[in-house]
Amino acid sequence: MKLPLGYQYGSTYARIRKVKKDDLALIVSDTPAAAAAVFTSNRVKAAPVVLAQKNLKASKGKVKAILINAGNANCATRTGDEVARITCEAAAQALSVDPNLILPTSTGVIGVELDPSKITRSLPGLVKKLSPGKFQQVAEAIMTTDLVPKTATAEVSLSQGSIHIAGMTKGSGMIQPLMATTLGFLMTDAAIAPARLRPLLKQAADASFNRMSVDGDTSTNDTLALLANGASGLKLSAKDEPVFLDALTYVAQELAAQIARDGEGAQKLITIQVLGARTDDDATRIARTIANSPLVKTAIAGSDPNWGRILSAAGNSGVAFDPRQVDIALQGMLVCEGGLAANFSEKELKKRLDAKDCAIEFHIRGKGKGHARFWTCDFTEGYIRINASYRT
Amino acid sequence: MKLPLGYQYGSTYARIRKVKKDDLALIVSDTPAAAAAVFTSNRVKAAPVVLAQKNLKASKGKVKAILINAGNANCATRTGDEVARITCEAAAQALSVDPNLILPTSTGVIGVELDPSKITRSLPGLVKKLSPGKFQQVAEAIMTTDLVPKTATAEVSLSQGSIHIAGMTKGSGMIQPLMATTLGFLMTDAAIAPARLRPLLKQAADASFNRMSVDGDTSTNDTLALLANGASGLKLSAKDEPVFLDALTYVAQELAAQIARDGEGAQKLITIQVLGARTDDDATRIARTIANSPLVKTAIAGSDPNWGRILSAAGNSGVAFDPRQVDIALQGMLVCEGGLAANFSEKELKKRLDAKDCAIEFHIRGKGKGHARFWTCDFTEGYIRINASYRT
Repeated sequence: MKLPLGYQYGSTYARIRKVKKDDLALIVSDTPAAAAAVFTSNRVKAAPVVLAQKNLKASKGKVKAILINAGNANCATRTGDEVARITCEAAAQALSVDPNLILPTSTGVIGVELDPSKITRSLPGLVKKLSPGKFQQVAEAIMTTDLVPKTATAEVSLSQGSIHIAGMTKGSGMIQPLMATTLGFLMTDAAIAPARLRPLLKQAADASFNRMSVDGDTSTNDTLALLANGASGLKLSAKDEPVFLDALTYVAQELAAQIARDGEGAQKLITIQVLGARTDDDATRIARTIANSPLVKTAIAGSDPNWGRILSAAGNSGVAFDPRQVDIALQGMLVCEGGLAANFSEKELKKRLDAKDCAIEFHIRGKGKGHARFWTCDFTEGYIRINASYRT
Repeated sequence: MKLPLGYQYGSTYARIRKVKKDDLALIVSDTPAAAAAVFTSNRVKAAPVVLAQKNLKASKGKVKAILINAGNANCATRTGDEVARITCEAAAQALSVDPNLILPTSTGVIGVELDPSKITRSLPGLVKKLSPGKFQQVAEAIMTTDLVPKTATAEVSLSQGSIHIAGMTKGSGMIQPLMATTLGFLMTDAAIAPARLRPLLKQAADASFNRMSVDGDTSTNDTLALLANGASGLKLSAKDEPVFLDALTYVAQELAAQIARDGEGAQKLITIQVLGARTDDDATRIARTIANSPLVKTAIAGSDPNWGRILSAAGNSGVAFDPRQVDIALQGMLVCEGGLAANFSEKELKKRLDAKDCAIEFHIRGKGKGHARFWTCDFTEGYIRINASYRT
């Protein structure tokens, strides 16, 4: 895997979380990068989300560094705004740039005061240790209840040569990104006009992070950022945009699927495909309702081909459709044909459902062209165990 | 407990479910009763729901008997409509009345053909065993994954004497009634004008079954029916309506709370009170989003006072509010004050959260008069165990 040129990474243990595991990280562009970001749609927004939006505006879409801490969301706290400001200023000072070039992000528990000195005193040492090779180390430092780090890369051949995209993300619970994800960072060494960056990110996010759910809870801290520093020396032309968007979407979808696969307590990645709806929006609503149904998710956990729950969940999506026109396939086997039980081998299907990847296809017969792909995971006792005592 | 006059009950084992436990029941009014019912809002409606709506219309709101089977939802099956029709005709014949005076209801697994002969051959014997005292026996026969039967009664003193209300319901999973409940039956011996029956039932349902959720899944079979046979000889006057509605709502709320308490795997009944919203609708939306958040429900399961999840869930409800104006109390202890952590004894609160009843109060400061009470349950490993293998 070849990383984009012109970025350095670093992480350290700042004692924000109790367990000794890096919890503070920086992603730094050698020169300020053109940047775009999408944020949570939750009405309750964490302090770093509010400041990140302000900084992006003040810097006219430029970012020198992304400052990340895990272990504390810096949300719903007395000192949140001040902590976000102080830590951005400290990062800016350590990097000798303007504070509005810092994009602050936090993830972890909500409602617990975050001591800014833990971060400010760690920053000078962290900046000294920055290096282009510590990409993976940062992907590990931003994990909370994640079991594995989540990264993806792509190389894009443009007319004049190759540029690179790399992304990392984290998250395992409180996952139903509606504007972006819990935390996701996409870096490229292409030079991209700032005005084009946001629409490209928005399109990639809508086809990836915004079509994924672990538990239907949208976090207060969701941030997905895209940096383009131009270090490859190649500028993205209008002609190159589609191939770049494809690669960006691929990286974003890889990351989104990795989050679902690593959902809290999850044993299986579930990919839901809805076809034949009136519009893509209708298809997404049906897919999201199936993905968030605890009954569907527990059935998959138990390798139980209980397609009635899938049909019932779809019926609750608010989308109008005729149940008699619905075919449902599980692991490629038709289980429901025209709204009724199909003739399938339950024994064979149960065996197929024991796989780590589960495919649900929901097809409405007729002329509808609306479709959606959506990622989620099964719902196991592990989710309960993790979440009955996450905080205390 | 005194039951309404003029009703008879009975149940039997018709071999619809594998376990030997009564699965077929009748609630019969001595004379055809005025009746109203509300049904599921799920786009996928079971055959008995469709026929029940048709029969109620054809009979101009009269019901002689409610026919209930557990163990099979008679939904998404090839023969569903025919099975509903044949079994209603058999019940009508056994009771010597018109078939459209039968209100059919089914609950159980979706997508499995129901053999009507199991019901038709059991009906003559069942009718012979009807008696006014078998109310509790029917409440037990309609259970599926329920651990306990659910009943409630009330006596209402009208100007001319006393009338009675009795109700029973069932349900434990796939519970988020949006028009009615999974199955609920309310009987009264008052005489009530048919035109008034539906608005009274609608109001009682909106304040009870429609404000309750176990897992956010709305079933395909939800039916809540109210029968008024006038056997008390007392006619409900306009002046008596408010006191009757209070009693009816009380019975319906008792039943709804019993469903939440007996939610699949549940250890605790959670009562959510939202105050200070702009409208009752806004308050209900906030309450429903909190009630359906797996993160809130698992925190309560673990007696974890993680109020940040409650605030975050409310932020996802789609209702606009200022987080800095929010106070949250758990078990009567203030945990969040103006959107920030309040000063409370975590040790004391954890102890209080170990109780079987949990109260969440979400208060938006200001002039808003919107409020809602909502019932749900905690989310435990038991839910997963039950639902990972319900069907097979």
